[in-house]
Amino acid sequence: MSDRILAAVMAGPRQPIDIREFDRPALPPGAALLRTARSEVCGTDVHLWHGRLSGVPYPIVPGHVSAGTLENVRGPVHGIDGSDLREGDRVVFFDVHRTCGRCRACAVHRTPTRCPHRRVYGITDSAADGLFGGWSQAIYLEPGVGIARLPDRVSVDDYIGGGCGLLTAVHIIERATLRPGDTVLVQGTGAVGLSTIALARLCGASTVIAIGAPAPRLALARRMGADLVFDLDASSSDQRLETVRGVTYGEGIDVVVEAAGSARAFEEGLMLARDGGRYVVAGHYTDAGPSTVNAHHQINRKHLDIRGCWGSEPGHFLRALTFLERYAGTVPWSAIGERTYSLNQLDEALADAEAMRITKALVDPWASA
Amino acid sequence: MSDRILAAVMAGPRQPIDIREFDRPALPPGAALLRTARSEVCGTDVHLWHGRLSGVPYPIVPGHVSAGTLENVRGPVHGIDGSDLREGDRVVFFDVHRTCGRCRACAVHRTPTRCPHRRVYGITDSAADGLFGGWSQAIYLEPGVGIARLPDRVSVDDYIGGGCGLLTAVHIIERATLRPGDTVLVQGTGAVGLSTIALARLCGASTVIAIGAPAPRLALARRMGADLVFDLDASSSDQRLETVRGVTYGEGIDVVVEAAGSARAFEEGLMLARDGGRYVVAGHYTDAGPSTVNAHHQINRKHLDIRGCWGSEPGHFLRALTFLERYAGTVPWSAIGERTYSLNQLDEALADAEAMRITKALVDPWASA
Amino acid sequence: MSDRILAAVMAGPRQPIDIREFDRPALPPGAALLRTARSEVCGTDVHLWHGRLSGVPYPIVPGHVSAGTLENVRGPVHGIDGSDLREGDRVVFFDVHRTCGRCRACAVHRTPTRCPHRRVYGITDSAADGLFGGWSQAIYLEPGVGIARLPDRVSVDDYIGGGCGLLTAVHIIERATLRPGDTVLVQGTGAVGLSTIALARLCGASTVIAIGAPAPRLALARRMGADLVFDLDASSSDQRLETVRGVTYGEGIDVVVEAAGSARAFEEGLMLARDGGRYVVAGHYTDAGPSTVNAHHQINRKHLDIRGCWGSEPGHFLRALTFLERYAGTVPWSAIGERTYSLNQLDEALADAEAMRITKALVDPWASA
Amino acid sequence: MSDRILAAVMAGPRQPIDIREFDRPALPPGAALLRTARSEVCGTDVHLWHGRLSGVPYPIVPGHVSAGTLENVRGPVHGIDGSDLREGDRVVFFDVHRTCGRCRACAVHRTPTRCPHRRVYGITDSAADGLFGGWSQAIYLEPGVGIARLPDRVSVDDYIGGGCGLLTAVHIIERATLRPGDTVLVQGTGAVGLSTIALARLCGASTVIAIGAPAPRLALARRMGADLVFDLDASSSDQRLETVRGVTYGEGIDVVVEAAGSARAFEEGLMLARDGGRYVVAGHYTDAGPSTVNAHHQINRKHLDIRGCWGSEPGHFLRALTFLERYAGTVPWSAIGERTYSLNQLDEALADAEAMRITKALVDPWASA
Repeated sequence: MSDRILAAVMAGPRQPIDIREFDRPALPPGAALLRTARSEVCGTDVHLWHGRLSGVPYPIVPGHVSAGTLENVRGPVHGIDGSDLREGDRVVFFDVHRTCGRCRACAVHRTPTRCPHRRVYGITDSAADGLFGGWSQAIYLEPGVGIARLPDRVSVDDYIGGGCGLLTAVHIIERATLRPGDTVLVQGTGAVGLSTIALARLCGASTVIAIGAPAPRLALARRMGADLVFDLDASSSDQRLETVRGVTYGEGIDVVVEAAGSARAFEEGLMLARDGGRYVVAGHYTDAGPSTVNAHHQINRKHLDIRGCWGSEPGHFLRALTFLERYAGTVPWSAIGERTYSLNQLDEALADAEAMRITKALVDPWASA
Repeated sequence: MSDRILAAVMAGPRQPIDIREFDRPALPPGAALLRTARSEVCGTDVHLWHGRLSGVPYPIVPGHVSAGTLENVRGPVHGIDGSDLREGDRVVFFDVHRTCGRCRACAVHRTPTRCPHRRVYGITDSAADGLFGGWSQAIYLEPGVGIARLPDRVSVDDYIGGGCGLLTAVHIIERATLRPGDTVLVQGTGAVGLSTIALARLCGASTVIAIGAPAPRLALARRMGADLVFDLDASSSDQRLETVRGVTYGEGIDVVVEAAGSARAFEEGLMLARDGGRYVVAGHYTDAGPSTVNAHHQINRKHLDIRGCWGSEPGHFLRALTFLERYAGTVPWSAIGERTYSLNQLDEALADAEAMRITKALVDPWASA
Repeated sequence: MSDRILAAVMAGPRQPIDIREFDRPALPPGAALLRTARSEVCGTDVHLWHGRLSGVPYPIVPGHVSAGTLENVRGPVHGIDGSDLREGDRVVFFDVHRTCGRCRACAVHRTPTRCPHRRVYGITDSAADGLFGGWSQAIYLEPGVGIARLPDRVSVDDYIGGGCGLLTAVHIIERATLRPGDTVLVQGTGAVGLSTIALARLCGASTVIAIGAPAPRLALARRMGADLVFDLDASSSDQRLETVRGVTYGEGIDVVVEAAGSARAFEEGLMLARDGGRYVVAGHYTDAGPSTVNAHHQINRKHLDIRGCWGSEPGHFLRALTFLERYAGTVPWSAIGERTYSLNQLDEALADAEAMRITKALVDPWASA
Repeated sequence: MSDRILAAVMAGPRQPIDIREFDRPALPPGAALLRTARSEVCGTDVHLWHGRLSGVPYPIVPGHVSAGTLENVRGPVHGIDGSDLREGDRVVFFDVHRTCGRCRACAVHRTPTRCPHRRVYGITDSAADGLFGGWSQAIYLEPGVGIARLPDRVSVDDYIGGGCGLLTAVHIIERATLRPGDTVLVQGTGAVGLSTIALARLCGASTVIAIGAPAPRLALARRMGADLVFDLDASSSDQRLETVRGVTYGEGIDVVVEAAGSARAFEEGLMLARDGGRYVVAGHYTDAGPSTVNAHHQINRKHLDIRGCWGSEPGHFLRALTFLERYAGTVPWSAIGERTYSLNQLDEALADAEAMRITKALVDPWASA
């Protein structure tokens, strides 16, 4: 790798993506430089491009989940498993690179994903501060970042296909306190929804049902483990409710997961859960507008549990790797990453992602195009 | 007691309450007849009178929580503690007299309050089937009803002041999984809200806040243990939010309890809870109309837990008695029962309850008026 | 089926099993008669034969888990899913046929497996009271027994191979509150241990480790889903501890399950669990003698959770069926049932089970031998 | 305060306590110097003096919980509530001054009290590194220590009387997941046990029972909130079991807390808990030798939960302050601190603590003696 590093920069909301050259950064002790093999364009990046997240220090280098090879290590640098990391190691890293550990969210409430000092690669650091994003030929891994070797049997395509959606899915399943044999219904067949389907199946669900669109994603949902899929556009919510009750003794679903980011989906999910069931709300990463809820019928009388689920923690990252290691051969995570874009094509990638023309866009910062 | 028993009958929605004579019932083995000392008019009775609950087999004898003295026992009849019950014992009973124990709600999901075969004194049994309600000089206690002796230091007025609201409050506190030192905010200062305030205080809450009306109930809320009360009519939701944040490091409340039965209250509660907090929804016993919810700001990003809470179980009844036994001398439960009505005055009692002119109306079926 | 029914009777501890003729029972409304296809000889039966359980009303017809075909139905009889059951249906039933639903264990503590009035087929009913056990050509299903149709794709051999061990395993996994990607170690490779291995694998465990003996059971443990097996007789506890730490970052195991019924196993399990881990103790169905525990090193400093797990509930029975329905084609439950015995061979079956010569003995009450 | 600071140093196990002079430390930004008003001699200090904890870097300045006034602040220094701290403020601090936040214990398992990098005032820092203990006229508060203002209505004597035992008690009650109306039995009437009694009473327990000795501590246990006390020396374990069953419907206790640090206490606690109950083991801070446990009778068949409880977290510290603020006027925490010693008297203090001649010894580093 030369001393000049190319990276794609989002200068501000709705501005064209810009390719810029960066100097190879000096590394303090404990830091490393990652040669990026793949990064991703996730739904968050579309929101960033629309300026829907507050407090983003544009210009930024987007790309929060990425994989690559250690190019430089100013060691000793330890992996999250305690082992020494070396140049040439194939690694991945947890994108949340700082939480303070001392605020009330971290230390008192044990909700580190709500720490006000939380820093996330690709989102919270200005390009002026360095290569803190994956849409770049190299990523600066500051001291203390949680780094893990990619297991031998997991390809970069498997890892990046799962990506941040898989980490969120691990959190969702944990938050759902899934019991053996629970029925699970997942609203949404994007990256989060698809990984949630796979994990529900792998974590002991009985029937797994998905609601989504378009058709190719529904086909993929089946391959990820859904027993039954509803095409959002070709069925009504009444039809879905009737079918769901028909396969659940008239009760509804034990665990519903909202991974759709739609105000209507939230309303429907309240209907689909059984009395005494659980509803994990994880898809509303940005404001999708108001929902109408009847607190009597849908919550109080239903004795329902609704659980918001925000972000992910280092444990979710590590547990995601154990699933990839064991199941990458049988679960088509790599198929979620549908098309790979060069740095020059990222405007197109954002447009394709927004229009849902593809499930997930990948980034190869070394591709020419 | 003579062989003719007077009881107040609700013949149908919005019909005047009717006094009828019933025969003293024959007792099968294991049954008992209770001479009623006091019963209550709770919010449910107002709903019953408006016909807002489905499946009610009018005509009925209302009154689900009551206290009295055992008039006849066809024994052996055992209290829920295993002891022999005898004529003359001062007793109370758990109003849910049947759940099936075999349906999926009971046996699989452990949500007996959602059992479709659930039967509740004062609500689910027709007057044609007997004296299954407390607005009567005597109540038929069928075999298997959960009966407990009223502890010596608990007066009938203490017990009936707490009444069904206290049982619900025990369930609420349990469902809230209160941690030592949690802040608690209770929306609503009716019978459920007032007992929830008392139990939050007695179960280790730090600051306890109440929102309610009118002024006398707020004064009682303070006596029950609230540190801070908001008059619903004299403060805006913005003012309340600002004040609450001011006393909680800007965070909001650990545990919010909805005991108001208002669609607006539900919306406000979502704002008042802190990130990662819990919100128990217990006041929507009937349909109070739709609420508007933003799933991003109020649930997902907030990592919030919302927990519907329906009905109560025998354990809540017994645990309520332990609180009365220890604290009836210091917590003014008896003050919740504000005025006592004779059987002839029950139309007036319903009107007073509905207009919120009194906190709780009691029934003395032996009073002449 | 003739009017004379053959059944094997255990007249008392250590007495030879006796074949007796019973009359075909009269059926009250809601009852049914099951023509037994298979029953099992489980570890409990060995304990019964040794007189190790208190309060058993010998003589009894043993056999608590069984499968068969409905021979007579005095209907309507409803399955636990609400459907009508008919003669000729292939069914199974939950062996706990009564819990009171009203005692403190049932109603207050929600621990129905500790109900003092609990009645279990094959254990708690005298042969004088009828055909309440599976070592018989027919079983009397009293009104209220939880009956379920055996799913089409589940053979009787699959069901009976899983048997009561599978139900217990569902309870164990639920009690373990398994998180996605947890490491699991199972002590014991009998019927309970083998099903626990399978469910841990199917419910999202990462590495699954087993300790057991003899060799054929270890081979079966691998087929059920264990990644790593230790031969109890060919390895020392120090070797096992060292190996386990080697594959767990030096930490030990997230979830250890004791399904061995040995006092030494309990001691070793405390060492194998990681700090902050969980240890489910499920194999000590009878008294296996005292263990030596260091409360400082093994519990307090370890911040360990130890959870006893007793019996099973209707929900575990139903959830077991969902696993069989989905996975009977891939998980070799039927291989647990190693040899089938006629009624005449049951002394031999008990001897074989006790000597651990076979994993599980099955009973075919129609076989001639 | 002069530039020379006196502190008591424990040079090594079983060596006499030594008074040494230290220089006033230079403060980096974010650090502060606390003028010590009171510190304590807790059971840990006795263990330290006997050399029973591994890895202690003698010589050390003992004293992990202390209170005082800010003498110097190199600001800005923020309290854990976000406010600016100033010289002259009356403050207390959380004794665990470092956990790494990145190891598997911290980040994956959320068990920060098991972090291998955990540092605790008075225990883990050598006197060569500075004033990291409370047996000193001044304490160095390094940047990042969790500092809180002592509420106005809480005296130093209240705070130090509760001390580390109160923090542990908050953790115990949280770990016990106390339900409203639970019966609680506390084994041990030292500082941890006494505060656990108080918190159980304040957090909704019904009957609270204590087992301990000697007589003055039992009298204090009653003042802290125990309804019933057993003198360990004047009653047998059989008598205690019989009495306990007599007041719990024959069942045993919902929540037993071990705060005695005795191998026999652990054995007895397993008997005293009811079926399906919880047993929190918190008193075995060091090795008190082996206990004999029957896994069948005491854990498996009992369906018991046993929960080790180690150390405390910042949230427990803050929640402890809320209890002191509200209840210091009514709960005699200050009475736990029975006698105050000067730096010269600390050998005597250790001897008195070990012999249980006093409940808790306090340290006034400014007293002359």
